[in-house]
Amino acid sequence: MNLRIPGPTTVPAEVAQAGAAEMINHRGPEFAAMIARTTEGVKKVYQTSNDVETLTASGSGAMESAVVNFTAPGMHSLVVSIGNFGERFQDLVGIYGGVLVKQEYKGGQAADLNKIEEALKADPEIRTVFITHNETSTGVTNPILPDLAALVHAHDALLVVDAISSLSSVEVKTDEWDLDVVLSGSQKGWMVAPGLAFVSVNERAWARADETASKQPRFYFDLRRHQKSLETGQTPWTPAVSLFFQLDKALQMMEAEGLENIFARHHKIGSMVRDGIRGMGLELVADEGVESDTVTAFWLPEGVNGSEVTKIARDKYNTVFAGGQGNLRGKIMRFGHLGAMNEADIQAGLDALKNAFADAGYKK
Amino acid sequence: MNLRIPGPTTVPAEVAQAGAAEMINHRGPEFAAMIARTTEGVKKVYQTSNDVETLTASGSGAMESAVVNFTAPGMHSLVVSIGNFGERFQDLVGIYGGVLVKQEYKGGQAADLNKIEEALKADPEIRTVFITHNETSTGVTNPILPDLAALVHAHDALLVVDAISSLSSVEVKTDEWDLDVVLSGSQKGWMVAPGLAFVSVNERAWARADETASKQPRFYFDLRRHQKSLETGQTPWTPAVSLFFQLDKALQMMEAEGLENIFARHHKIGSMVRDGIRGMGLELVADEGVESDTVTAFWLPEGVNGSEVTKIARDKYNTVFAGGQGNLRGKIMRFGHLGAMNEADIQAGLDALKNAFADAGYKK
Repeated sequence: MNLRIPGPTTVPAEVAQAGAAEMINHRGPEFAAMIARTTEGVKKVYQTSNDVETLTASGSGAMESAVVNFTAPGMHSLVVSIGNFGERFQDLVGIYGGVLVKQEYKGGQAADLNKIEEALKADPEIRTVFITHNETSTGVTNPILPDLAALVHAHDALLVVDAISSLSSVEVKTDEWDLDVVLSGSQKGWMVAPGLAFVSVNERAWARADETASKQPRFYFDLRRHQKSLETGQTPWTPAVSLFFQLDKALQMMEAEGLENIFARHHKIGSMVRDGIRGMGLELVADEGVESDTVTAFWLPEGVNGSEVTKIARDKYNTVFAGGQGNLRGKIMRFGHLGAMNEADIQAGLDALKNAFADAGYKK
Repeated sequence: MNLRIPGPTTVPAEVAQAGAAEMINHRGPEFAAMIARTTEGVKKVYQTSNDVETLTASGSGAMESAVVNFTAPGMHSLVVSIGNFGERFQDLVGIYGGVLVKQEYKGGQAADLNKIEEALKADPEIRTVFITHNETSTGVTNPILPDLAALVHAHDALLVVDAISSLSSVEVKTDEWDLDVVLSGSQKGWMVAPGLAFVSVNERAWARADETASKQPRFYFDLRRHQKSLETGQTPWTPAVSLFFQLDKALQMMEAEGLENIFARHHKIGSMVRDGIRGMGLELVADEGVESDTVTAFWLPEGVNGSEVTKIARDKYNTVFAGGQGNLRGKIMRFGHLGAMNEADIQAGLDALKNAFADAGYKK
């Protein structure tokens, strides 16, 4: 089955196989060497010299870790939401007692720096800004991160970036852009099975974590505990060792391909998907200029049932596409194009999509 | 390398290989069928018809889930601790705002039902009792669970059992013993790589979860979210799919061996380890009659350096033993005998231990 969803992505055979290696002691020297190596590798992809913690959890666990380490009850947080995963940050801030300042954009729009500045000026108590870099639910990449970081820091606030479905596929310059906290997840461009999540933390963010330590309960996702354990080559809780084996291998493959080539490949296949879908007479959800290079969302034309298309694509063309999430359910479809994927894979995916649409009665 | 530690345990080749299967959509029909199957399989091993949620996390995540779902700030909890993992519950109850009533036993002792009754009588506000079934740090199994459940329920409290390192290796009759919440983890007797944790929840416990819903913040470990997702064949957050593949295979192997045979095998190899270690003139940490069938802890004799023994065992005899944790560090060693292990494996482990002790200068 060909996965053309925005994660989990195809795990290359070498990576899958690496995960089947003989189990090791997570408190022994082999694991210590491995986590040192994978952490260095992940930091290269993050383009950072900040600390990076690897959690045994999915991306949502990394999102929770950002909220419980960097906010406290009563603290104001601005959540800039351009879709479903922005809404997840809204939920989290509310659940963990924060004062939520919402800023929402319609499906397909990117965030507007000026409006964020207005929000920061309107509420000087905002201490943290949360933003989704690449919104998986709409296929939009927010292009404003470097300017946003400068703006947020000018207001003495902390910037948390959910880059779960972008980092490792499209460029995120953590240090050059001065991003305080950046999240990612193994099942996206990293080409690893789901179950590991990454969180980078700079000095500004560590200071915040120490400030909130006595105010916000946390344990499993306590990043200081992870950082202290990592210094001894361990994790505080038993890690998903077999996924570390996979990550170790996947990072070697990424190193061999080279970051610039990976980003160029994703841009190329992203363009192919957009051209192909537009060529079918379909309209993208994303506004022009902010389309994602990892996932493309497109509107279902009148008379075409998305569930029927995905079922036909699956059963007849061996290809899995995603439907819409939240209030876009039933209105859109999504084509994931990240991770271990080349132009031939994309062409096959587009062919499957075209055929499934035709079978479902669609005429351009 | 032969793992003789109390987890992660050896993953059989068929199970490891099952984890390398082609990645699937976690929101598709294959995953729905798989999680329905694994949940049924896990419930059989739990001997329960209660709900069982599978978390993408290590056992410590399951422990956190018990505290954040079944306690609230200000609520009194009795934590019965017979070692390091009991202390973890103490920490968690404190972190999440509970009023902690401690009951601690010295290394090697099992919990005493009469003392627990005294504690419950002394503080009628105790609403939850936490206990470790099998304490990995000392090699002790608490034998009182059925009576304890009756006692706890007579006091209108809830019983949470950490059976992480026992369930699937030794008998835990969740329903017959009326255990409200029972935790386990994939990297123990289940023969699966680390990264999945299980939590069984009965009606009494669900009522408590609903009672605390507005009082205790929770998100990633919110068990109601897991239960609702499971009804649709999903998990609320992206699950560790490759570990589900492994679990699916491991459960088939457990089904083929039969629960009674698995328990008998663990009892047999547990006895072998105890006899072998006593035969070396060494003393077990566990009091007589409460020794664990999954891990044996023993005192280091004077003049023998545990780190040296574990290093020799590793480097020369290809066998990994564990040292002590917490205040037993440097004083004891531990031999894990759970999961995919037979009598020949145990004999080889005992031989490695004997040789390493001799090499380190030990004379009986």
